[in-house]
Amino acid sequence: MANLAVKLPQKWQHLLSLADFCLADYELVLQTAASFREVLSRRTKKVPSLQGKVVANLFFEPSTRTRNSFDLAAKRLSADTLNFAPGTSSLSKGETILDTARTFLAMGTDLMVVRHSMAGVPQAIANDMDKLGGQVAVLNAGDGKHEHPSQALLDLFTMCSQFSAETPSVHSLKDRKVVIIGDILHSRVARSNLWSLTTCLAEVHLVGPATLVPPELAQIFPQIQIHYALDKYALAGADFVMLLRLQSERMEQAFIPSLREYHQLFGMNSDRLKWCSPQVKLLHPGPVNRGVEISSNLMDDPNLSLIDQQVTNGIAVRMALLFLLGTGGREKAIV
Amino acid sequence: MANLAVKLPQKWQHLLSLADFCLADYELVLQTAASFREVLSRRTKKVPSLQGKVVANLFFEPSTRTRNSFDLAAKRLSADTLNFAPGTSSLSKGETILDTARTFLAMGTDLMVVRHSMAGVPQAIANDMDKLGGQVAVLNAGDGKHEHPSQALLDLFTMCSQFSAETPSVHSLKDRKVVIIGDILHSRVARSNLWSLTTCLAEVHLVGPATLVPPELAQIFPQIQIHYALDKYALAGADFVMLLRLQSERMEQAFIPSLREYHQLFGMNSDRLKWCSPQVKLLHPGPVNRGVEISSNLMDDPNLSLIDQQVTNGIAVRMALLFLLGTGGREKAIV
Amino acid sequence: MANLAVKLPQKWQHLLSLADFCLADYELVLQTAASFREVLSRRTKKVPSLQGKVVANLFFEPSTRTRNSFDLAAKRLSADTLNFAPGTSSLSKGETILDTARTFLAMGTDLMVVRHSMAGVPQAIANDMDKLGGQVAVLNAGDGKHEHPSQALLDLFTMCSQFSAETPSVHSLKDRKVVIIGDILHSRVARSNLWSLTTCLAEVHLVGPATLVPPELAQIFPQIQIHYALDKYALAGADFVMLLRLQSERMEQAFIPSLREYHQLFGMNSDRLKWCSPQVKLLHPGPVNRGVEISSNLMDDPNLSLIDQQVTNGIAVRMALLFLLGTGGREKAIV
Repeated sequence: MANLAVKLPQKWQHLLSLADFCLADYELVLQTAASFREVLSRRTKKVPSLQGKVVANLFFEPSTRTRNSFDLAAKRLSADTLNFAPGTSSLSKGETILDTARTFLAMGTDLMVVRHSMAGVPQAIANDMDKLGGQVAVLNAGDGKHEHPSQALLDLFTMCSQFSAETPSVHSLKDRKVVIIGDILHSRVARSNLWSLTTCLAEVHLVGPATLVPPELAQIFPQIQIHYALDKYALAGADFVMLLRLQSERMEQAFIPSLREYHQLFGMNSDRLKWCSPQVKLLHPGPVNRGVEISSNLMDDPNLSLIDQQVTNGIAVRMALLFLLGTGGREKAIV
Repeated sequence: MANLAVKLPQKWQHLLSLADFCLADYELVLQTAASFREVLSRRTKKVPSLQGKVVANLFFEPSTRTRNSFDLAAKRLSADTLNFAPGTSSLSKGETILDTARTFLAMGTDLMVVRHSMAGVPQAIANDMDKLGGQVAVLNAGDGKHEHPSQALLDLFTMCSQFSAETPSVHSLKDRKVVIIGDILHSRVARSNLWSLTTCLAEVHLVGPATLVPPELAQIFPQIQIHYALDKYALAGADFVMLLRLQSERMEQAFIPSLREYHQLFGMNSDRLKWCSPQVKLLHPGPVNRGVEISSNLMDDPNLSLIDQQVTNGIAVRMALLFLLGTGGREKAIV
Repeated sequence: MANLAVKLPQKWQHLLSLADFCLADYELVLQTAASFREVLSRRTKKVPSLQGKVVANLFFEPSTRTRNSFDLAAKRLSADTLNFAPGTSSLSKGETILDTARTFLAMGTDLMVVRHSMAGVPQAIANDMDKLGGQVAVLNAGDGKHEHPSQALLDLFTMCSQFSAETPSVHSLKDRKVVIIGDILHSRVARSNLWSLTTCLAEVHLVGPATLVPPELAQIFPQIQIHYALDKYALAGADFVMLLRLQSERMEQAFIPSLREYHQLFGMNSDRLKWCSPQVKLLHPGPVNRGVEISSNLMDDPNLSLIDQQVTNGIAVRMALLFLLGTGGREKAIV
């Protein structure tokens, strides 16, 4: 396994957003995650890197998938994990979010994985921890409609691994066409992916109904192209198609007419696939609404779908993130 | 500790039902569980057999007892455990059960312990995992009114241990009279026990109100005897009396008139005990409704009740099952 | 690390109440907790003291703070932990509390941490376990309005550590003035603190509205002084001010007129601080209602508030308690 004695820059104290990530940051994540993917191919898929350290999963918004992924990543690094259940918590007793975080800091938490339905909560917790002089790293595991950095990083790792499974590199994404389809407006996954994909110089296209694709995005990311129909212009030669989860509560708010119509207009299916590159691959952050964002037969085609690989790579990428933030790059090697 | 280098037959890829278990399978479970019971008598009750492996407890139906039993069994084998909470899960976001299982497979789960209120779900998951080529073993921890194999195996282990604590054997059950009392119709515990007890050539009697004991069972198990009254004919010379849990929702469906009347007609008490063998022992899968299936004084008599032993043996039997399925018998020894 | 080969007296079989604790018991806790605080200052904050042992957290009443504190303390002693979730439990299936505890005993639990909204439940469980001959220690983690021993012990450890961080001793509390403010009537924290503080010969004052400070307490603890106003007489020269959590449900019962008025009459603020000793320190068991029991600026002043230290010390004190009860003092040293 490669040595990883790196001097991490200041921004690596927490992981809150990808807005200030540069190519070197992405490359560091890919390289570290590739090392951990190798660990996961061993008979004993565990390393002692974070032995004696405590990872607290503060999921103020419920989650099975992301919470279990971080939990398993922490356990495979030999950390102890604490889980916070919002339903039965001190919050219902009038405690503030920051005081809850302070309590976990005082208990000896080394890494806080924070999800909240309100944008900015992980940042606010990180600021407060820094003010208190706490030696704790905060990881944003999804905050409102803002960002979901670990998801975008596992997407990046999964796409780059298509070109080199052993040594994935950000350079392989240059000029690749990535089409993101769906509810861009409310998607923290899309927002984090826009930062990573544009920095890696991919050619990014957004597709969705006008109600769900804000034209203002072009002011922040002038290089992206926006389409309001999932037609041959949008998909022509696409290397990767990334489908976003349609949240049913959007229906009530009249952003889209019906699930059936959404699938007809923006669902990925065999007909539309023909417009893409012959090597096209499909991604979805899950959980999938089968027959809405994507037809079942495409989803189950292992030559097309990277969805399972995204989940698998999620463990390696989150191990990499916990390792980098938890050791501050002071460790010489993973094992 | 005995060496356990066995070549497991194909049926041991998953544990879904006891319908195809033969005497050799039961003997293998008893022998392996006895080895783990010895581990549990040590000062440090832990072995490294499943170090680095992941056991996911997918309890779509809530459970404290069985989930904690599997969880502790996994931890004592040094596995890492993931827990799935249906309330806050991706299921509520429109994901299918099979896609949930696929996600846990993709995360790197080695053993899935599945409970669901619908019969057949563990089988469906196992089929899907096999189709995907996943190296994962599925254990049925109770599916609808179908089967609950680990419960029947711990019942078997507990009964056979009465005749030889060190080396329990299925042969000791031959011609022993086992009386199962209660709601046979809805009981997955009864169904799994019918497979194991008849294969081990015990003399099985079923007792319950006509609404709850389906006569069709005699077509599948022609050797069993059915009684509609808990009288001296049913209990005469009984070696083991197995009480089933009465679920209160049965009341609403008018299967039985009242809890009080149920106890009068089918509750085990001191008077009825006299008809049994002087060495009779009582079993109950728990949780017990005291004063309904059994009177409190019988339940608390350590010379009669095997209920606590069932719970204790549950850990050893589930360690054995996770070990056999998790190592495929490729391990030479437990320690 | 100091050797801890002690012969524990009989009362140390369980930890249910501080009513029968003598000075030597408190001193033993302080000394052991100080050893574990040293462990927590190491790079790897874990010791193998309880390897292979099982700690079951039976929180019949929901809790984040205390449950996580005990959970982490157990994990840092290398124990395996089981968690009981009352919502989805066997209790809802008609099982009695004692039968639930018996099930955890039969599974092989070595230490039970019990919280219940009804006073006396931990004692009842301990009695039942003893009757069954179970080798299990029961720790009261809060029972109704009765006691919360581990909270009072961490309060004691935190106060005594002010006088000697390395070797805190109960003797340092003699004649120190401790003022406890708030809802004494319903507080299990206050009750446990009254036992420890009076035994350590602190000068204890209670302050609160007449509806919430029962005068009968003076019959059990004749040495305490009661005040119905938070004035200069109550606070004069106070070394420690301990604020109790105001539970909002008290409002509905008309024990106090409004949160705003409560803060005006009994909230700790900068004006009232002047009456205390210049070295005064503030304690609160948390979670805090900011601006009710205490003004935000006092709570956030690290020269005044010991609240974070209480949480941090909670881990060391609970490790000490689990260690003492789990090894029965038979261990020669922690490491």
